Amino acid sequence: MSLPPASGRFENGIHRFAARAYFEDTDLTGVVYHANYLRYMERARSDMLSLCGIDQLALLGAGNGYFAVADLSIAYKRPARLGDDLTIVSWVTRVRAAATVMTQQVRRGDEVLTEASVTACWLDAQGRPQRQPRDWATRFEDLRASAEES
Amino acid sequence: MSLPPASGRFENGIHRFAARAYFEDTDLTGVVYHANYLRYMERARSDMLSLCGIDQLALLGAGNGYFAVADLSIAYKRPARLGDDLTIVSWVTRVRAAATVMTQQVRRGDEVLTEASVTACWLDAQGRPQRQPRDWATRFEDLRASAEES
Amino acid sequence: MSLPPASGRFENGIHRFAARAYFEDTDLTGVVYHANYLRYMERARSDMLSLCGIDQLALLGAGNGYFAVADLSIAYKRPARLGDDLTIVSWVTRVRAAATVMTQQVRRGDEVLTEASVTACWLDAQGRPQRQPRDWATRFEDLRASAEES
Amino acid sequence: MSLPPASGRFENGIHRFAARAYFEDTDLTGVVYHANYLRYMERARSDMLSLCGIDQLALLGAGNGYFAVADLSIAYKRPARLGDDLTIVSWVTRVRAAATVMTQQVRRGDEVLTEASVTACWLDAQGRPQRQPRDWATRFEDLRASAEES
Repeated sequence: MSLPPASGRFENGIHRFAARAYFEDTDLTGVVYHANYLRYMERARSDMLSLCGIDQLALLGAGNGYFAVADLSIAYKRPARLGDDLTIVSWVTRVRAAATVMTQQVRRGDEVLTEASVTACWLDAQGRPQRQPRDWATRFEDLRASAEES
Repeated sequence: MSLPPASGRFENGIHRFAARAYFEDTDLTGVVYHANYLRYMERARSDMLSLCGIDQLALLGAGNGYFAVADLSIAYKRPARLGDDLTIVSWVTRVRAAATVMTQQVRRGDEVLTEASVTACWLDAQGRPQRQPRDWATRFEDLRASAEES
Repeated sequence: MSLPPASGRFENGIHRFAARAYFEDTDLTGVVYHANYLRYMERARSDMLSLCGIDQLALLGAGNGYFAVADLSIAYKRPARLGDDLTIVSWVTRVRAAATVMTQQVRRGDEVLTEASVTACWLDAQGRPQRQPRDWATRFEDLRASAEES
Repeated sequence: MSLPPASGRFENGIHRFAARAYFEDTDLTGVVYHANYLRYMERARSDMLSLCGIDQLALLGAGNGYFAVADLSIAYKRPARLGDDLTIVSWVTRVRAAATVMTQQVRRGDEVLTEASVTACWLDAQGRPQRQPRDWATRFEDLRASAEES
């Protein structure tokens, strides 16, 4: 018997994904270490891609390429604490030839703890930016349009 | 709206908890970095305590103490890969005055990827071992007895 | 016998600190995981404070407060690889009442791999922004002025 | 200008390597998180291999294989704290066809904080154990013999 791990879902272009803060995530100030919010956000992005039918492991294995963060801006508003049930809320804000831009928030209930803008670039196996496949770009653009309306 | 994160459950003294392997967990050999299995196992232990009604954050805040790993032996049998749905299966094997010993396995379906024996010690705020509260010891001992029978 | 760990130094307001990329830092794309550059940069900031005579552990223990990242923008230009000898180059760009702003670069030789702007806020024990002690503000302002000239 | 990062050295078969505990390494109990000692020990092992002339990145790139931890036992005796200057002391205790066994201690001055026995297995690109190259086995055996005498 196995249990399903937390999985997110899209609703009107908005992706929601659950995480919980564990000892590993905290530091001695008693709250979540600043770099670890980036890990929560990456889990949510991986889940988004998976829900879009994009298999990152297969693409990497086949030498097709991988997504990498090209730039990221994050504001830390309130800290997360041990045991907090967090929701990572993400939506696409812009689709470019080789990159997709998202806003990602880490929330505890209705409180926004951190908010980030993340540019994820589609790289070839040598790490050079390459044009995103057309069907992905279309999918991301649809998500962006849905989120904008909602 | 928020989503519940993965939570585990006990059945006949056996605790099961879900995790998924993300980019953050892997290293350049393509599989999960050896130290990160310890993070999965700690998440499961925190969930076990929570299901036993033990609030680690409150205990720490009140200066009552905290659980710490006193020793750990782990065998790595097969590697976990990106996207793997993992189950951490844990059961108590021994209850001592100041410590509880568990076996913890990280499984992918029926395959045991790693198996560890972990001794968690109950420390006071100054980090010295202290006797576990009687009701906890009783609870852990009940779990141990149930697991042994199952 | 013990060996001194890597320590940084200031020269004309510019702080340089060494790090090396290990397995723990990489992910399965073969390069350093994006969130881990933030760890390198935090090591450098801790070293800067230490060189300024600020003992973070003592301040935390005495309940005086601690520095936390309030916001951070980072551009990823080129990836670091296993075994790379990196230099984290940091300088103060602005000193405010409760916060200090820095630029931090992770370099491999002369190549800038990532560049970030980091705002570190001085918080009280309850996590609220508080005015930085005057002598720290003076020290940070001196470093800023030196860096600007150099 | 770049600074050399901490590098270790061998003396009579005993390898010493420096590390320092940073915020990233601690958790909310105020001390270093138990899984992070494994990261310190892995840095030391990478440094040992490098001093033995073994280039892990080149071997991985060429598809020759890589070292992986097959099993590990660790005893946590005393905790490391923020800012502690640590020395990882390592020596080979046994050389087998496909694996090398080491003892690794994390020390603060003369105090042993943790002590581990680590079996590192030499795997092929598919993750299967393979015989260590003869010159490596000879080198590891020489280190073992030197350590035993010292």
